[in-house]
Amino acid sequence: MERLPGFRDFYPEPLPHSDVGSADARQFIFDKWRATARRYGFREYDGPPLEPLDLFTTKSGEEIVGQLYNFTDKGKRAIALRPEMTPTLARMVAAHERNYKKPIKWFAIPQLFRYERQQKGRLREHFQFNADLIGETDPAADAELIALLIDTLRSFGLTESDFVIRLSSRNAWSDFFKQGRGDAAHEYEFYQAIDKLERASPEENEQKLTALGFSLDAVNTFIKSGKPTAELQSILDNLAARGLRDFVKVDYHVIRGLAYYTGTVFEAFDAKGEFRAIAGGGRYDNLVKLISGGKVNLPALGFGMGDVVLLELLKARGLLPKFDANVDVFILIEDENLRAPSLKLVQDLRAAGYAVEYSLTPAKSDKQFKRAQELKTTFTAKFESDAYVRIRNLKSREEIVAGANDVANHLG
Amino acid sequence: MERLPGFRDFYPEPLPHSDVGSADARQFIFDKWRATARRYGFREYDGPPLEPLDLFTTKSGEEIVGQLYNFTDKGKRAIALRPEMTPTLARMVAAHERNYKKPIKWFAIPQLFRYERQQKGRLREHFQFNADLIGETDPAADAELIALLIDTLRSFGLTESDFVIRLSSRNAWSDFFKQGRGDAAHEYEFYQAIDKLERASPEENEQKLTALGFSLDAVNTFIKSGKPTAELQSILDNLAARGLRDFVKVDYHVIRGLAYYTGTVFEAFDAKGEFRAIAGGGRYDNLVKLISGGKVNLPALGFGMGDVVLLELLKARGLLPKFDANVDVFILIEDENLRAPSLKLVQDLRAAGYAVEYSLTPAKSDKQFKRAQELKTTFTAKFESDAYVRIRNLKSREEIVAGANDVANHLG
Repeated sequence: MERLPGFRDFYPEPLPHSDVGSADARQFIFDKWRATARRYGFREYDGPPLEPLDLFTTKSGEEIVGQLYNFTDKGKRAIALRPEMTPTLARMVAAHERNYKKPIKWFAIPQLFRYERQQKGRLREHFQFNADLIGETDPAADAELIALLIDTLRSFGLTESDFVIRLSSRNAWSDFFKQGRGDAAHEYEFYQAIDKLERASPEENEQKLTALGFSLDAVNTFIKSGKPTAELQSILDNLAARGLRDFVKVDYHVIRGLAYYTGTVFEAFDAKGEFRAIAGGGRYDNLVKLISGGKVNLPALGFGMGDVVLLELLKARGLLPKFDANVDVFILIEDENLRAPSLKLVQDLRAAGYAVEYSLTPAKSDKQFKRAQELKTTFTAKFESDAYVRIRNLKSREEIVAGANDVANHLG
Repeated sequence: MERLPGFRDFYPEPLPHSDVGSADARQFIFDKWRATARRYGFREYDGPPLEPLDLFTTKSGEEIVGQLYNFTDKGKRAIALRPEMTPTLARMVAAHERNYKKPIKWFAIPQLFRYERQQKGRLREHFQFNADLIGETDPAADAELIALLIDTLRSFGLTESDFVIRLSSRNAWSDFFKQGRGDAAHEYEFYQAIDKLERASPEENEQKLTALGFSLDAVNTFIKSGKPTAELQSILDNLAARGLRDFVKVDYHVIRGLAYYTGTVFEAFDAKGEFRAIAGGGRYDNLVKLISGGKVNLPALGFGMGDVVLLELLKARGLLPKFDANVDVFILIEDENLRAPSLKLVQDLRAAGYAVEYSLTPAKSDKQFKRAQELKTTFTAKFESDAYVRIRNLKSREEIVAGANDVANHLG
C-alpha cells in the first residue's frame, strides 16, 4: 500500500530513505517559527483544513478550481482543502474582529493543498508559516511584518549573505500604469506580465507589453531606476532604525501573482538565486471587506513562508541539525531481580523531566549498553545493589555511585 | 461566509465566543503530549491527512466508508481524509521497519476526520495523541504504554481521583467465548455485544447474547469476577513497581469496538463518569501484516487520546490555564523623536529572546500604557533621553533607569 503521489511521510531521523520527510526537521522548523512570532507579539490561530469552495473562488475567481483539491461532501456541499490561509484568516477576522484590539497580529502554521495536474514529483501539500497584521494602514506595519520575516530567517542561522528581501509596491506600478495611460480594464493583466518578466523571453515580454500599450524599454528603465516611493522609503527607514536595512533591496521586478494585493509587496530569496522564493507577501487592504460581504473593512498585510524551499536552503547551507532520540538516561537492568527498583527509577527520572529508556525485556549487558550508545544517551544508570546506583556519563566517562533516591541530583 | 458544520476555528484567547476553539489551549495540550512522549523515549512521526481509501477499508471493511470524508480526486483515485492514524502508521512501519531498532516507540498528533450524517452539533474533526509501541509481544510493552497514558494525563494535573484506566483483554474474552462453545464465525459479533453491554438495555443484551449461545448472567458473572489473566497480572505488577498501580482497575466491560484488537485493551475514563472515554487502545498484533500484504509481521499496540474530551475534563476540573499574549516588555514611545532608538531597543530585546510590543504609530501616553496593561506585560520601558531607559516592573512596581544597551540585564 503506497501513499498518495505528492504527499510526504514524516519519519524520525536518521531517515530510512531520501524520498521521505523528517518529522524532527519539521518540528525544528515549526518551533523556530512559533518562537520568533511570539517574540514579535503575534498570537497563534488556526482554521479548518476544509472550507466551502466559495471561500476560495470569491477571492481568486473560478480559475483557481483547476488547482484545488475540491469535492462534494455527503451533505452536497462544494468544499475544498485549503490552498492558502488568507481567505480563512479574513473569514475568521471578519466574524470576530470586535473581540480583538487593533492591530491584530496573528500567525498560523497550516498544511496547504494544491492539486496541479501533470506535475510528477511535485508536492501537492506543504506547511506554511503565515503571519498577518490587520487593522493598520501605516507603513510602520509593513516594516514590523518584514522585520518578523527577516528575524524568522535569521533564527535558523541564515545571514544577510544567505538571503535578501526584494521589496516592491503595487502602488508604484499602479502609478506607472496610469502615467503610461494604461487601460484600467487590463491593469491586472499588466501586473501578470510584470510578474513573469524574469521568466519569459524578451520577445514574449515585448509582445505582451506592447499589446497593453507599454514598451519593454520603459518598463526596464523604471525597474532599473529602483527609486523607492515615499511609502517604501518609510519602510526602509524603519528597518534601518532596527539595524535591518541591509537585508532589503528595492526591486520592482516583484509584483506578486495573486490578484488581491494592493500596496507593498515583497519576496525573500536566497542570495545565490539557487532556489524558488523562500517567502512572499504584501498588503491586501480590500480582502477582509470582500470576504465579509462588505460588513467589515480592515486593512491588512501578511506573508507566507513554506517549509519545502526553506528546508532545501537550510540543508544546502549546512544549517539543519542532525536529530536523534534525545535520550538523557538509559537504565541498564543486568539482574532481573532488580527490575522492580529499576522501573521505579525509570518512573522517578521521567517524573523529574528526563527522557529515559531501558530494555523492556531481559537482555544481555553488552546488548543493553550497545543500545544505549545507539540512542546517544548522555548517562547510563545501573543498580549495584537494591539501594545504590552507578551513574556513568558516556560523554565525559565520569562515574559515580549514588543512593537510589538521589540519582536525579547527579545528572547535571 | 461560514465555516463548515462540525469544524472548529481556533482563536487566540480571550475567546470571542463560546462556539469557537482556543488556539492557545490546543497548543498547551500539544506541548504536554509531546513533552511526555519524549520523556518516555517516543519519537514523533506523521503521515498525510489524505490516504488511498483502500488503506481504511482493508482494515475496517467497507462499512467504514459511510463514516468517511472520501472522494475521487482529479486523477480518479478513491481517497479519504484519515479517520484514524493506525493504518497510516502500519503502512509507514511496513515500508521502512528495517531502518529502525525494535521496539519502535513512535507518537503523532494528527487531525482526524469523520463524516457522520444526522449528528448536528457533533464535531467532524478532532486532534488525537497517538502513541504506539511496535515489535514487542511481552506484556512489559503494554505496561510501558499504559504508564505513558497515565503520565500524560498526570502532566495536566489530573490525579488518581480524576481518572481511571479500565484494563481488559480480548484474550480473556476469547477464552470465555471458546469455553462457552461460541461459534467462531460470530466471535466478533459477540465482542460487539460486550462492547455495547453498558449502553444497551438488559433485554437487548439478553436477546443478543442468547442468539450467540450465551446467557447475560454468565457474562455478568465473568465481568464481576474481574480476575486478571496472567498477562494482565504481569502488566499490573509492572505498573505497581512504578508506583502506578492505583490508576488501573481490571474491568472486563471494556473490549473496544474496532475489529483489529488482539490482546490487551484499555480505556481511560474520568473517575466521576461524566464524560465519554478520554483515551482508548490495545494490542493489534496482526495489523502490520495485514496492511503490508503479509510482507512484514510485527506485534504492536497503541492508544489514541482525543483533544475534545480532554479539554472538557480539564475545564471541568479547573486545570486549564487562562492564556494571554505573554508579552514581556512594552516599549512606550512618548516622544516621536525617540522612535528610532526605541525601534532599536525593540529589536535588541527581541534578539535577546523577549516578547516585545509597542505602538506602531504615534499614540497618547495613557493609551499606550493602557494597551501595555491589557497585554498583561511584565515590564514597560521608555527612553528618558536618547541614552537612558526607564524600566518599570508592572507587577512589583519597581522602577529603574538603565543605559540603552543595558536594558536586557534588568529584566530579571
